Amino acid sequence: MTYCVGLLLDAGMVLLSDTRTNAGLDNISTYRKMFTFEEPGDRVIAIMTAGSLSVTQTTLARLTDAIENPDSDQTTSIMKAPTMLGVADIVGRMLSDVSAEVATKLDRMGQGASASMILAGQRKGGPMRMFLIYPEGNFIEATADTPFLQIGEHKYGKPILDRVITPQTSLAEAQKAVLLSMDSTLRSNLSVGMPLDMVVIEEGALRISYQRRIEQNDSGFDQMSEAWSGALRNAFAEIAPLD
Amino acid sequence: MTYCVGLLLDAGMVLLSDTRTNAGLDNISTYRKMFTFEEPGDRVIAIMTAGSLSVTQTTLARLTDAIENPDSDQTTSIMKAPTMLGVADIVGRMLSDVSAEVATKLDRMGQGASASMILAGQRKGGPMRMFLIYPEGNFIEATADTPFLQIGEHKYGKPILDRVITPQTSLAEAQKAVLLSMDSTLRSNLSVGMPLDMVVIEEGALRISYQRRIEQNDSGFDQMSEAWSGALRNAFAEIAPLD
Repeated sequence: MTYCVGLLLDAGMVLLSDTRTNAGLDNISTYRKMFTFEEPGDRVIAIMTAGSLSVTQTTLARLTDAIENPDSDQTTSIMKAPTMLGVADIVGRMLSDVSAEVATKLDRMGQGASASMILAGQRKGGPMRMFLIYPEGNFIEATADTPFLQIGEHKYGKPILDRVITPQTSLAEAQKAVLLSMDSTLRSNLSVGMPLDMVVIEEGALRISYQRRIEQNDSGFDQMSEAWSGALRNAFAEIAPLD
Repeated sequence: MTYCVGLLLDAGMVLLSDTRTNAGLDNISTYRKMFTFEEPGDRVIAIMTAGSLSVTQTTLARLTDAIENPDSDQTTSIMKAPTMLGVADIVGRMLSDVSAEVATKLDRMGQGASASMILAGQRKGGPMRMFLIYPEGNFIEATADTPFLQIGEHKYGKPILDRVITPQTSLAEAQKAVLLSMDSTLRSNLSVGMPLDMVVIEEGALRISYQRRIEQNDSGFDQMSEAWSGALRNAFAEIAPLD
């Protein structure tokens, strides 16, 4: 499985993904699930993926091919689409097409494969937008009422986000929140694993503001994780029992 | 859906269940999912249920019928079984039989139904034991390594249990922990709802030590929930950001 989370805040967007991929419990690998595309000053796009690796890799490869193809136009290249909605259309259509192709092959073996994605970005002159793209290619969008989107193993890390995230949350607090949300998921579910990829896109920057891979045994993340465990235990100890 | 959690601790067992049952989003009802059986001084048994209401109600009704049937013996009545393992066998077999019957009926409509249960109890002369009984009737048991069992929507409330529960946890702390685990689940998932049923069985008591229904707007639970939200936000604010 996977855990990816994206926050759409007034100050910008914060994205975090894990890297664990598994085909059964005895075939575990590390694959990047965070992909970024930018033409600084014009547009910045980030895509996070969950689900069948064959579907997500092929989809990303074809999106990249289309960008590099000199014949591509605004309906096929995410770097030429005039708006983020146009980008979402291209990604959704490609995901749907690849899913359908792979499904045809897998059907013969009685198996299935699907994938979903979080797409975030900003185009010059437009607002930041963040979409959750379903395996069928349709999508929903983050709004002020629902300022975060998750794919993969989303339940363990949802309570902390429900409690602390609002559109007014600062980018520094937001990075803490996604890391602690991921920390809870890592502790409770073996199918989500280090290293992590984090991307921050400031509002209006039209480029990746900050990008970082957090490796296993990263001392900063380990300290944050331990501090959070300690703080949770202290908070728990302080709560008065029910009468 | 449902959320039920049971802790098996050195000092005793703590069980908590919600009461929300739904057939689609427009048909939501309240049904008890916590059932207790006791012959004080001889045995105490608690059962929590998740899944298809038709399966769990029929299973519980037949288990009760067997207890009241003067012809029942130690292989059919959970009040006559010589050990908790024997009780688990009876409950598992009944759950499996009822599931199979209901499945036969539903198959014709292309539908399915299944249910799972947590069974906890102690028989005079034996240890406390707690089992998670699967829809097929087989079961696993809580141990010192894994001192809690969950059924239903278990993911939201697992991180807090992973962090604070050990076999040495006191019964007072344990009650707090299951209530806060439930609180996180209630906040993040609409299919789990108040009121709650809590049961505490002290080690060696061979009776229900404490039983309580916590209604919507219970001031004690609301205070605990608010205190926990506040404590979490404070704990979050105290965590230093990643460099």
